[in-house]
Amino acid sequence: MVRLFIPILLGTAREGRRTENAARFVFEQAKKDGRFKTRFLDVRDFVMIPKTDGAVSEEKSKEWKEIVTRADGLIIVSPEYNHGYPGELKLMLDQLYDEYNRKPAAICGTGAGMGGARMVEALRMSLVEFQMVPIRTAVYFSNIKTLFDENGKIKDESYGERLKKLFDELVWYAEALKVAREKK
Amino acid sequence: MVRLFIPILLGTAREGRRTENAARFVFEQAKKDGRFKTRFLDVRDFVMIPKTDGAVSEEKSKEWKEIVTRADGLIIVSPEYNHGYPGELKLMLDQLYDEYNRKPAAICGTGAGMGGARMVEALRMSLVEFQMVPIRTAVYFSNIKTLFDENGKIKDESYGERLKKLFDELVWYAEALKVAREKK
Amino acid sequence: MVRLFIPILLGTAREGRRTENAARFVFEQAKKDGRFKTRFLDVRDFVMIPKTDGAVSEEKSKEWKEIVTRADGLIIVSPEYNHGYPGELKLMLDQLYDEYNRKPAAICGTGAGMGGARMVEALRMSLVEFQMVPIRTAVYFSNIKTLFDENGKIKDESYGERLKKLFDELVWYAEALKVAREKK
Amino acid sequence: MVRLFIPILLGTAREGRRTENAARFVFEQAKKDGRFKTRFLDVRDFVMIPKTDGAVSEEKSKEWKEIVTRADGLIIVSPEYNHGYPGELKLMLDQLYDEYNRKPAAICGTGAGMGGARMVEALRMSLVEFQMVPIRTAVYFSNIKTLFDENGKIKDESYGERLKKLFDELVWYAEALKVAREKK
Repeated sequence: MVRLFIPILLGTAREGRRTENAARFVFEQAKKDGRFKTRFLDVRDFVMIPKTDGAVSEEKSKEWKEIVTRADGLIIVSPEYNHGYPGELKLMLDQLYDEYNRKPAAICGTGAGMGGARMVEALRMSLVEFQMVPIRTAVYFSNIKTLFDENGKIKDESYGERLKKLFDELVWYAEALKVAREKK
Repeated sequence: MVRLFIPILLGTAREGRRTENAARFVFEQAKKDGRFKTRFLDVRDFVMIPKTDGAVSEEKSKEWKEIVTRADGLIIVSPEYNHGYPGELKLMLDQLYDEYNRKPAAICGTGAGMGGARMVEALRMSLVEFQMVPIRTAVYFSNIKTLFDENGKIKDESYGERLKKLFDELVWYAEALKVAREKK
Repeated sequence: MVRLFIPILLGTAREGRRTENAARFVFEQAKKDGRFKTRFLDVRDFVMIPKTDGAVSEEKSKEWKEIVTRADGLIIVSPEYNHGYPGELKLMLDQLYDEYNRKPAAICGTGAGMGGARMVEALRMSLVEFQMVPIRTAVYFSNIKTLFDENGKIKDESYGERLKKLFDELVWYAEALKVAREKK
Repeated sequence: MVRLFIPILLGTAREGRRTENAARFVFEQAKKDGRFKTRFLDVRDFVMIPKTDGAVSEEKSKEWKEIVTRADGLIIVSPEYNHGYPGELKLMLDQLYDEYNRKPAAICGTGAGMGGARMVEALRMSLVEFQMVPIRTAVYFSNIKTLFDENGKIKDESYGERLKKLFDELVWYAEALKVAREKK
C-alpha cells in the first residue's frame, strides 16, 4: 500500500528553461516507479518577492504550505546559476520552516559539464538548516542543452537507472522518518 | 583624487528587514571614509522574477548594468536566510556577468549570533564564478535585532573600526585591479 | 534500556589544542544525559598519513573501523582552521565509508567569534557523501581560548542546555535509523 | 622577461594516487607556456601531523615557507575525497598564513565524473581566508582513472587548451597583484 507522498519541484522560473524537461522526466519516472504518490510543482506558480507589488500571492503561499505539510519528502529539480541556486527557488523554500522538519530531500541538478553539482552542495546547506535529511544520491543532468530531443524525450536512457537509485534511498528515508514521526 | 566607485547593495527585500540599518551604516561610514565614491542601492528597486508578469522592469535591469559597468568593486550587505542568501539578491546578481569581471567584492552579513557567516561563504562561491575577487575581510553584524536603536543608530561603535579594515582591503584590490584592467 | 552507542571524536591533533576542553565537556554531558553509551576518541590516537613512514598504524585503523561499525551515530568536536576542518580529522574520516551509512552525525565547533561555524558547513558536505545524516543542531563553542578555566571547567553554563538540544535531535535520528536499518 | 614564480603543488599523498599524472601534466604545460617560472612540489615531501612523532619535519616546513614567500601565486592539483580536500593538503596549507596574502591561486581538480568540482569549492573557502585570490578558471580532470595511458600521457589533448586559459587568468592576477604589492 502506497502511503508516501513526495512532490517534485521544478526550481527555475526562467524563460526558455531547459530544466523543465529534466523535471518532467523525473516526474514520469516517479509515477512509473510507483512507490510513492507524487505531484508536479512549478516554482513559477508559487514564487513571490516579499513586498514587490504584483508578485505576491497569499493563496499560493498557503497552498505550498499545505503541500509540504502533507509531504513525506521532497525532490527538487533545479539548474545551477553561477555556482548557486536560482533566486526564485530560494524565495519559495524560505517561506516555510516547521513543515520541512524530519523529512528527506533529494536534489536533481542540471547544467553543462557538471550537471549542477555546485548548486546541489549549496542547497544542501539550507536543507540541513530546514531540519531536512539531504540524501546522498543526486542525479546530475549534464549537457542539459542537448540531453533531450525536440519532443522532450531523454536521449540517454541510463538516467532511468540513476533515478531508481535515488528513489531507493529517498523511499528508505521517507519510510524510516515517517514511522518515527508518527510514533511521537 | 578619488577615482574609485564602489556601490553598496542592500540584499534583502523583506518587509520589516533589519538589515537596512546595517546597510545605511555601511553607506554612512563609506562616505565618511572618502576613499571611494559610493551609492546606495536597494534590491527592492531592482529585483525581478523572470517571466512573472508585473515583477519585471527592463529599465531597472539596464540601470543595474550601467552601475556595475562603471563600478570598481561592490559591497553587498545582506542577511542570512536558512544558511544561504536571499533569493531576491541572487536574482539581482544573476542578471549580469561580464560587468563583474576582475573587480573586488566585499560582503557584510547580518544575523543572530553568527552575523550571517554562512551566507558570506555561500555567496563567495558565486562571486568567484562571476570572476570577482571576494576579499577576506567581512563584517558580521551579529544580534541585528538589537544592534541598532529606534533611530537606526548603532549601539556598538567598534563596527566603525571593523568597516575601516574592510575598506582598507577593498580599496587596495579596487586600485590594483583598476590599474591592471586599464593597462590592457 | 540504553541500546544506542554514539562515540565522541576530538578532531584536532595540534599541540596546545583548546578544543580538548570542549570535547571533554561534551563527553561528560553525554554520560550524564545517559540516553546513549559513548566513548571518547582522540584523533591523535588514530590519525595517519598515507604512505608516510612512521605515521601509519594498521591496528588503529582497524579499531576505528570496529568502533564505527558498532556505532549508531557520531559526535565530532572540532576547531575551525582557516574556514575548513583540520587535515587530521579528514584523514581519519576518509578511511571508512560503508560503516557510516544511514547513521546520524552531530558537529560541535570551536573557534573565536564564530565557534567554528564555517567548519561545520564544510564538514557536513562530506557527511552527506558518507551517507550520514548531518543533524541541524550544532553547538558552537565561541571564544574557546577563554571559555574554560585553568581546570578545564566551562564558565558559561548555558552550554549544557545547548548540548541537551543536540542530544535530543541526535537520539531521535539514531533511534529512527537504527529501527529502519534493523528491519532490512 | 619572466619575473613571476608560481609553484605547482600535488595535494595527495595516497598510495596509488592517479592525480600525480595530472599534476605532472600541469607542470609540463606550465614549463612549455613559459610565462612564469615554476617548480613541482609533492605534499608527500612536506606533510606532517602536528605532534605525531615521526611525521614532523621542521626543515621541510621551513622550506615550504620559503617557497611561498618567494611565490607570486600557487597552483594546487588535487583529488576530491568525499566531497572535500585531502587531509594532508589541508595540513600543509594550514602551516602558513601571511606568506599567502594578496597572491592568486588556481585549482585543478581530479575525480570521476565531476573532476573534483566539490573539492574546488571547498578549498576556495580556505583560500579566501588565506587572503589569496581564488581565480575562476579551474581545470577539472574527469575520469582520472582512464585519462592517462600507462606512460602517463594524457589521452584528451583539449586539456592543454583548458590549462592555457587557466594560465592566462592566473598570470593576469599574479602580475596585477605583484605590481600592487611592490608599490607599498
